[in-house]
Amino acid sequence: MKTSRLEAFSDGVLAIIITIMVLELRVPAGPTLPDLLRSATGLLTYLLSFVYVGIYWNNHHHMFQLVGRVTGGILWSNLGLLFCLSLLPFTTAWMDQQRFATTPVVTYGLNLLLCAIAYWILQTTITHNQGTDGPLATALGRDLKAKSSPAIYVVGIVATLLVPWLGVAIYTIVALMWLVPDRRVERYLASHDLAEG
Amino acid sequence: MKTSRLEAFSDGVLAIIITIMVLELRVPAGPTLPDLLRSATGLLTYLLSFVYVGIYWNNHHHMFQLVGRVTGGILWSNLGLLFCLSLLPFTTAWMDQQRFATTPVVTYGLNLLLCAIAYWILQTTITHNQGTDGPLATALGRDLKAKSSPAIYVVGIVATLLVPWLGVAIYTIVALMWLVPDRRVERYLASHDLAEG
Amino acid sequence: MKTSRLEAFSDGVLAIIITIMVLELRVPAGPTLPDLLRSATGLLTYLLSFVYVGIYWNNHHHMFQLVGRVTGGILWSNLGLLFCLSLLPFTTAWMDQQRFATTPVVTYGLNLLLCAIAYWILQTTITHNQGTDGPLATALGRDLKAKSSPAIYVVGIVATLLVPWLGVAIYTIVALMWLVPDRRVERYLASHDLAEG
Amino acid sequence: MKTSRLEAFSDGVLAIIITIMVLELRVPAGPTLPDLLRSATGLLTYLLSFVYVGIYWNNHHHMFQLVGRVTGGILWSNLGLLFCLSLLPFTTAWMDQQRFATTPVVTYGLNLLLCAIAYWILQTTITHNQGTDGPLATALGRDLKAKSSPAIYVVGIVATLLVPWLGVAIYTIVALMWLVPDRRVERYLASHDLAEG
Repeated sequence: MKTSRLEAFSDGVLAIIITIMVLELRVPAGPTLPDLLRSATGLLTYLLSFVYVGIYWNNHHHMFQLVGRVTGGILWSNLGLLFCLSLLPFTTAWMDQQRFATTPVVTYGLNLLLCAIAYWILQTTITHNQGTDGPLATALGRDLKAKSSPAIYVVGIVATLLVPWLGVAIYTIVALMWLVPDRRVERYLASHDLAEG
Repeated sequence: MKTSRLEAFSDGVLAIIITIMVLELRVPAGPTLPDLLRSATGLLTYLLSFVYVGIYWNNHHHMFQLVGRVTGGILWSNLGLLFCLSLLPFTTAWMDQQRFATTPVVTYGLNLLLCAIAYWILQTTITHNQGTDGPLATALGRDLKAKSSPAIYVVGIVATLLVPWLGVAIYTIVALMWLVPDRRVERYLASHDLAEG
Repeated sequence: MKTSRLEAFSDGVLAIIITIMVLELRVPAGPTLPDLLRSATGLLTYLLSFVYVGIYWNNHHHMFQLVGRVTGGILWSNLGLLFCLSLLPFTTAWMDQQRFATTPVVTYGLNLLLCAIAYWILQTTITHNQGTDGPLATALGRDLKAKSSPAIYVVGIVATLLVPWLGVAIYTIVALMWLVPDRRVERYLASHDLAEG
Repeated sequence: MKTSRLEAFSDGVLAIIITIMVLELRVPAGPTLPDLLRSATGLLTYLLSFVYVGIYWNNHHHMFQLVGRVTGGILWSNLGLLFCLSLLPFTTAWMDQQRFATTPVVTYGLNLLLCAIAYWILQTTITHNQGTDGPLATALGRDLKAKSSPAIYVVGIVATLLVPWLGVAIYTIVALMWLVPDRRVERYLASHDLAEG
């Protein structure tokens, strides 16, 4: 099985997840600026989840450039990741509608943690398949960012129990940390081309 | 007509079906853990239907690797399958919102049965087209899993009339049975490559 | 501009139109069979619109196999067709929710008529571009089915003013008429291959 | 990173944005013509936003024909544009549901302005990457239409403060201005082919 159809299907699902969140935004009930401002937190949480799905799409795309063959294990761990990401519209809407109460913010953090674990499982399934000196394992190297993210989510979840807004701030910081594009795959491809050229 | 555009369209429809189910999940009305737990069955039924659509996508993809040419019959039996699958968000939501009452669980089972029949019609349309010694018929062989699934759905539907939860359990077992990837197509392709090589 | 990206975008929009109609289906309010049966007309109108979008996808795909180059005119008449088709979930839901009252059934018929006109404009834009002896004009020939459909829609709309259910029956007959696959394009391609071979 | 997957993902998101707006249309509550006419403004605003997303899809497609390589900057400014466009279903629904009150119409205008700015950022990111004599910068030339649009949006927003309907009229004029297809990219490609031929 080639990666192209798996990538196309994943792109489709990610495109839908990133877009249907806007359907959860409640259209303001009145025609005034205060009515709109009451939706402002909804817009900000939508932006946060939009950025997260964008990050996953970006990293997913980079990762699959180093995958040659799709096995049953890769296919199902990929669907596992898509399932976790598909819950984001649900947890985002709950967090916003309950005005950042403790439990919804913790749940949102757990959702982010779940996505990170699902991504890690997918990545591990691929590297196991390719061997420890395969292209993906070599490109990833020590992978500090990916290893630290789950720990920071846990910090965010604990912080939420004290001050909910602090949790949201910490989730935002992880997103900003990932906005910096991951050049490892590009570097691997470039050095590989050089070696061959 | 080439298979590529039919596959792309089917992928699009399946990606939307698998994702819009999350829109049917009702965001908890309150901010507490018990509020979330009341949505827990919704999450589990969503997971079950997600896995089923994932299985169909996977099998659909494998099957079309052995199809060379799309006829009018294949096109319309494919749309028939997509129609049956597109009812899953509807029957899933009903089953969950009525807390696994008998009739909704039976209806969900009938929907799964309908999908299996539609898939069988699509498969038969293709093999008729290719002849009994065509690539798909050869690859499928005795096809025990596909032949037993409809029977197990019927068992599940009957069991629901006694104990609704038993029906859901049986539907889940069929899903798990299919999670094991179907290697027949891969085996056919591999042996075919070998024979040619 | 190549046709591939226009086809991919159209496929995406058609896949969404055909699938989101299921979101308009109201999940039955109670857990019994009569509750489900009250949704039965919704399922049948969904099926009718599903078949119509399937027919347009099928014909659209066949037509674009004979288009080499996309002009601004083709692009915008294609978007016009997609707009008309995207109204189907709206008119379908209205027709069903108002239990086939006269005005909604007339409106649904007008929507079908609008789609047929938009398709005809798209087709004419392409043939004008290719000339009267271009591949599409040659393949279409006298085009009886396409020329009679708008007339039958008008008959259906008028019939609705007498008996609403008669209108729905006539719209269904047009759909069945189109379910028979259009072999003209295939025949053109086959004869063209023959002539070249 | 090749442009093909970024284009496919953008196409997916744009196809969803353009189609889900129809879900925001409220199905008329009664079965009569006046009930339908009460939805008429909804249909017209949907048409306006549909045309805007169509224009962006068209221009996006033309622009990326001149892009060879996707950098992190291009990727994120593209996601920025998609985010701004994904807010259109929200602002369109608000403007319509509040019957063209001043604040919602101003907000819709600001959304259009935001999209224009995001598009300009994406375009600038690409031209910076290619250099001032790169293909895109050369093809764009003086770019009068793109430079005047934001100014006209501002005029529309100010006009709304006086007469809301005037704002909507001005937004419509900008859309009509863009409906005329942009031939600069096609001209560049044609002249480039000529020079090479």
